[in-house]
Order: sequence, then structure tokens, then C-alpha cells
Amino acid sequence: MRISIVLMLFLLINFSTTAQTDDEKMLRNIYDEALINSKCYDWLDYLSNTIGSRLSGSKSAEKAVNYTKSELEKLGLDRVFLQEVMVPHWVRGEKEYAYIENKGKKIEVPICALGSSIATPKQGLKASIIEVLGIDEMIALGSEKIKGKIVFFNRPMTPIHIETFKAYGGCVDQRSSGAREAAKLGAVGVVVRSMNLRLDDLPHTGNTNYGDLPEDKYIPAAAISTNAANLLSAVLKENPNLNFYFKQSCETLPDVLSYNVVGEIKGTENPDKIMVVGGHLDSWDLGDGSHDDGAGVVQSMEILSIFKSLGYKPKNTIRVVLFMNEENGNRGGRKYAELATNNNENHIFALESDAGGFSPRGFSMEADEANFIKITNWKPLFEPYLIHRFVKGFTGVDIGPLQSKHIVKVGLQPDSQRYFDYHHAANDTFDAVNKRELELGAATMASIMYLVDKYGID
Amino acid sequence: MRISIVLMLFLLINFSTTAQTDDEKMLRNIYDEALINSKCYDWLDYLSNTIGSRLSGSKSAEKAVNYTKSELEKLGLDRVFLQEVMVPHWVRGEKEYAYIENKGKKIEVPICALGSSIATPKQGLKASIIEVLGIDEMIALGSEKIKGKIVFFNRPMTPIHIETFKAYGGCVDQRSSGAREAAKLGAVGVVVRSMNLRLDDLPHTGNTNYGDLPEDKYIPAAAISTNAANLLSAVLKENPNLNFYFKQSCETLPDVLSYNVVGEIKGTENPDKIMVVGGHLDSWDLGDGSHDDGAGVVQSMEILSIFKSLGYKPKNTIRVVLFMNEENGNRGGRKYAELATNNNENHIFALESDAGGFSPRGFSMEADEANFIKITNWKPLFEPYLIHRFVKGFTGVDIGPLQSKHIVKVGLQPDSQRYFDYHHAANDTFDAVNKRELELGAATMASIMYLVDKYGID
Repeated sequence: MRISIVLMLFLLINFSTTAQTDDEKMLRNIYDEALINSKCYDWLDYLSNTIGSRLSGSKSAEKAVNYTKSELEKLGLDRVFLQEVMVPHWVRGEKEYAYIENKGKKIEVPICALGSSIATPKQGLKASIIEVLGIDEMIALGSEKIKGKIVFFNRPMTPIHIETFKAYGGCVDQRSSGAREAAKLGAVGVVVRSMNLRLDDLPHTGNTNYGDLPEDKYIPAAAISTNAANLLSAVLKENPNLNFYFKQSCETLPDVLSYNVVGEIKGTENPDKIMVVGGHLDSWDLGDGSHDDGAGVVQSMEILSIFKSLGYKPKNTIRVVLFMNEENGNRGGRKYAELATNNNENHIFALESDAGGFSPRGFSMEADEANFIKITNWKPLFEPYLIHRFVKGFTGVDIGPLQSKHIVKVGLQPDSQRYFDYHHAANDTFDAVNKRELELGAATMASIMYLVDKYGID
Repeated sequence: MRISIVLMLFLLINFSTTAQTDDEKMLRNIYDEALINSKCYDWLDYLSNTIGSRLSGSKSAEKAVNYTKSELEKLGLDRVFLQEVMVPHWVRGEKEYAYIENKGKKIEVPICALGSSIATPKQGLKASIIEVLGIDEMIALGSEKIKGKIVFFNRPMTPIHIETFKAYGGCVDQRSSGAREAAKLGAVGVVVRSMNLRLDDLPHTGNTNYGDLPEDKYIPAAAISTNAANLLSAVLKENPNLNFYFKQSCETLPDVLSYNVVGEIKGTENPDKIMVVGGHLDSWDLGDGSHDDGAGVVQSMEILSIFKSLGYKPKNTIRVVLFMNEENGNRGGRKYAELATNNNENHIFALESDAGGFSPRGFSMEADEANFIKITNWKPLFEPYLIHRFVKGFTGVDIGPLQSKHIVKVGLQPDSQRYFDYHHAANDTFDAVNKRELELGAATMASIMYLVDKYGID
């Protein structure tokens, strides 16, 4: 009894009943359309299985630009165009090889080069290896202990965080900055425990950043699978003086011309107010990038497809942007923001999907208090679709650089439990994406786009 | 601002702050314990990969009884015991075989016998086949159209339901009653579209029920994969006069003695008040029953393990029950209820996990209004763990027959999007279960057990 009075109060304060009814109908139509007629799963099939992985600067990234552009053109949008952007062109080269050399015995272990890493010498690199649980511990050891060695960063992701991105955030400095900091202390290479909460045999790549280190100080960096990291740690405890060998032939080639892909429905009332929805078209090269971020790409395309199918004519201009080069440079995100500024565009809203194609749970928001409350007040509309998380927080790398007079940014938050099982690894493939979960994510995104379009931002 | 006043009001009305703090700590301890030290994933590994599928009456079901009993004995409970129960013993026999015969051409299609079905004649069964979208449509056609034919039930699961169990509920009569009703009209066999929202090549088994039909009227019943169902339907549209052939050699052997496995921690204050948590130990035979219901079994065991590890001494008696024969008879559930009545036991609470080992989302409840509100008021405690569904509804087959003076029943509600991808099919295997999702489910169950134990039911 008590609870229903409070709930009634809540509803009375926050909703006008007629608006709710129309919006309820529209959301139901959006979800029905997504679950019955959506194209996103077929698009993802093509991106993943016909084109494959889409590392910036690669042939397949170029194919993905052409494919998504031509698919957007089929939707009958008001405008589809490309934005030129120069992107890095890092290539993995031959399959990497590594072993632990313990008392004359070689134990092979699965590794992969980290993105942007340099190669080892042609014959590979063999050196004594030292385990640390992070950059601070390494710095405390000092150059005397580190010089000439391979540094093994082995701090695991913490299992107790309910949202796995928190565990990732607490570990990823080892991958992104470990090589740079180790080089400063005279290390000859680094091996980083994969950013993965599971114990398995898959190395997970991801970018490493040498920062302002002079190029001749760069050292090769690789990821090692979680099982192999545990093994290496155990063997090191028995024999701290063992050698580690690894060989990789990756290299950074000259920058390549690539593109953001943009499609647009012109606003009927406020054509100058732009609402963006997007994901990133590039991916790492080990799997086919279905979750990261093929899912976000096809979901974003689906928003415009749903609006066209339902005959919904947005008040504001709705733009889908498929960003290039999120993984190793964010050049596409920065280029989009730069052009928006140069063209004096007024972006009022940006929505990104880059957390996998899993069951949607809610939204993270970068918004002032008034708009955060405004959007959170729509929560009851999303309840039938089991969308319950309305929180402040990080929204997306691609939309990060976008600035405007007054902009609200939102990130789709899917269930995060499985994300790091696949993230940047060879098993991030089409079969790991469930059609319904992908579609529900698209419908959830379309719903918030619709509500923001209808009610505006404060 | 408005929202925070309402939220404050909500919290003030519903919680005393000191209790909340203790409970918050306890829930955090439970989740930490599950995510760091739980045994459930290893138990499931053994059940699934060493023992395998556990159809009632099979050798492997017997092994599962012995294994789980011995694992419960290692937990230092106050009592571990078996409850005898006679169960059906249906065996699949040789792998089934089927084809569409269209204009002299044979198109092979994947089928499997439905549980409890009889075999076809040794040489198989070939007959003309007629497609219907349900039992009503078949009855409307009448015996003249049905007699001598195989009936093909092809009503698909509806994609628009957000909770997939609703879509299942709207279709499963074709599988459970289709053969019985078709036999009454003189059909010679039935083929049922698999209860699966995906399009794939896996037939999904599940029980069919001949009811009070005389045994000599039984007709063989099989499931066909969703892809093959679509193919068969398309070919039938071109040629309504084609023949369908299938062959299966399943049979029902005499009943077998089997067991419910029960483990117990005696209550410190109210040893006569019993709180049950359980899942079902039997499974279908095509996969290894990891989601259905290996997950529920090991999660239920984990509750008692967590309480022991944390040194929590429940006020009421906590009992884990691993029920036998949910899939084709529910003899274990009925036996448990019968013994509870005979022994004058006072059950105040029953919790079941039988909806897969996916990310937990909330609880369904069979409770009077007072207890429904009482439990729903604990919602804020579950918010940090992203548990948000507190609804009235079906809770579980195994705990269904259990009656008591005053009992509250709860079902764990995991995310349901993927469940029917695996349900009763060959891909319901260990690799389809994510360790963290399984553990989060166990922690969610342990948390509600703790709260009900502490605060009682009204």
C-alpha cells in the first residue's frame, strides 16, 4: 500500500497522462519494428562474415565504408556522405610466437602484439622477465631491477565489480601505458596480461601508446592470454631467473586516407539542430569485430531505418555517423568534431553504442542536472522493455571530442558480463551476437532518440 | 530535484537506516564471495562435462545424484539425504532420421523425437503431411482432412514479447498436446516446429503428453528445426501433396528408482520453519543440460556454500533440494511436496532457479500482497547488483506442488533473450554458460534467502 502511494506520487509529478499514452504507443511500435523487421542482424552478418575485421587503413575497412554507405543510400535518407580522415595504418604481420624458457625447457604460450607496438628484432627477443602488478610497482622497483628485462604486467581484472567496465578501467593502464613507462626504465619489452575476466587461451589485443617517447626508445609490447599469464606467474615463482622469448613483426605504415560514413534525415522543425547516433566502423583484426563495434554500427544505422519504416519525421536533423579509427587513434571522432565546429553546426544530442551487442540495460549520460532528470523521468516508458539503468557516466570515445553550445551525450549500456570474454580477441565474431539482443539495443536507442527529438533538451 | 525528493520519501518510508546498512554489507559480502570463491562453475563443469546429460532413469542421472550428494556432504551441512522417487524411463534410441519427399527428390531434415513419444514403425513412417498453425486450426479442419496424415504444427514463437517465456507459453501447447489431439482426429504422426526464436538447424526436444488417450492410439511425435520447418512450409506451398518420412526408435521402459538430493542447515531460532532453494537435477539428453537446469542445481548448492563460508547461521532451516524428473513428469517435485505434507513440515519459503544461468534480472513471486510488498521494498538493496525486476508470476515447476500453511514462492529471473537458443537442444552445453552470470545468479538467490531468513514472511 505504502509503495503504491509513492509510485502514484512519482507518476503524477513526472508525467502528463496523455503524452505518456502516445509515447507508450510509439515505443511499442519501435520495439515491434526492431524485433520483426529490422535489418541490423543481416548488416552485421555481412560486415562480419563477408568483410571481416576492419582495422584502420586496411582493405576491409575500406570495404566497410563502401558497404555501409551503399546500405544507407538504400534507406532513402535525405543525405549520405563521407568525411575524409587520415588514419594510422598499423599491421600485425606474421602470427606472433612466444615461449617461456625454464631450465632448458620451452613452454609455448599464446600472445599477440598490442596495437601500435613495434616489432621485435627479426630473430625475436629473449630476455629475463620480471612480474609486476602494475606500473607503480615497476617504478618502485626502479631501473636497476628493470633494465634489460621484459616486464610482465600481471594485475588481473577485479571480479567483484558488477559492471565489468570498472574492472577494465582499473587494469587497462598496464596495456595502454605499460610499454612507455617500462621503456623509460630501460626494459626491452613488455608482456601484458589480457584484459579478460575469464581464464582462457586467447590473447586480447588493444592499443598501446608510446606517448612522447622518442621513437628509438620504443620497445615491443604483447598481450598474453589469462591462462598463460597464470602459468608464467607460477613458473616465475619457482624460478625467478627464467627467460621469456617472443617474436612479432608488426609495423606502422604511413597514414591512409579513410572516411567517416554519415547519413541524415533532415529535421522538419529544427533542421539546424543535429542529433547524432553512432558507433565505430573500424575494429581490431583478431576476430571480426562483431561486438566491438559492428553491433554499434548496425544498431545506429537501424535507428534511421526504423524511423523511415514507421514514417516518423523527426523535428530535428537525425544523423548516423559511423566513425573510423576509434581503436587506435580516434581520428574519426576528432575529425567529426572538428568539422562540426568549422561548419558551425549545432549538435544538441549524441548517442553512442560501443559496449557490445548484448541485452540493453539502460543509459549512461553526460548531461547537466536538468537534462539528466528530464531523461530519467522517461524511465517508466522503458520499463516494459526491461531498461532500468539511468546513470551519469562515460558515454563513448567517438562522441567524446564533440562539443557544442549545449549538448547531451548518452551511451547505450548493454549487459556487460560477457563483454570482456570477446573484447579485442579472436572470438569476437558474429556467432557471439544474439539477434534479439542486438535488435533490443537498437530499439532502445531509437526510443531515446525519439523522446529527445520530441521533447528537446533543456 | 523533484525526483530526489520522491526518492528520499521512498527510502524514508520503507527503510530503517541501521538495518539497511547491515543488509548492504551482507549483500556485498555475498556477491563478493560468489564472484571470488564460489564453487558453482566447477560443479557445473563436472555435471556437464564429466557426467553429461541426465535424463530421468539414466545412468548419468544416477551419477549426478551421487556426485551432488557427495559435494553437499563436503560443505559441512547439518544433514544430507536422499528422497526416493520412482521416475519414468524414456530412452531416445537410435538417432532419428527424416526427409521431405518432393517429386521423387528426398530432402533430409533435422528432427528429434519428443520426450515420451512412441517410436515409428521399424521401417519408419511415410505419409502425406499437412501444415497447421495450431491445435485449433487442426480441429477446425476435422478428421476428414487429418486422418492418415502427419500433422505439421508450425506456429512460430512470437518475437515481440520482451520476455521470451511468454512467446514459449504461446506456442508450447503444440509440443505438449499436439500429438494427443492429432491422434484423436486419426493422424498417424506429428512434427512440431522447435520452440526456438532463432532460425537454426537444431531440433529442440521436450515432453509430449498423450494424456488419457488409450495406448494403442498413441502416435509418434518429433520436433523439427526452425530452418527445416520454414523449408517444409515453403515446399508444401509449392506442392501440398508431398510425403514426409521419419524414423525414430524411442521407447518408454519400466519406471526406475531415483532420488531427490537434499542438504540442510538447521535453523538456530526456528528450526521447524523450512526455507527451500532448488533446481532440477535431470535434463534432456541432447546437450548436457548446462542451462536447463545444471545452472539452477549448482546455484542452489552455492547458497548453502556461501552461508557456510561467511559463517552465516540462519534463523530458519535452509534446505537445498535437487529435484529429479522435472522434464518429463515432475515426480521429484510432487514427491517432495508429498513427504513435506506427510511429515507435517512447515515450509515458509521456496526459491527456484530454472530459467538458465544468464545475468540475473530479478524475481517472480507467488505471494500474497503483504509479502509481495515486503520483498519489493528490498529493491534498493539489490540496485547495486542491477537486480530490478520484482514481479508477480510463475516461479517454478519443481516447487509448484509444495503447499504449506503460509508460503511465499520466488523464481529467479535471469535475462531471457538467449534461453530458447539452447533450451532442450544439443547446444545446451557448458560453454554456453558464462561463469560470472552464473555466480551473479547464485549471489542474487543467496541475498533473497538471507533477507527472508532475517525478516521472515508476514
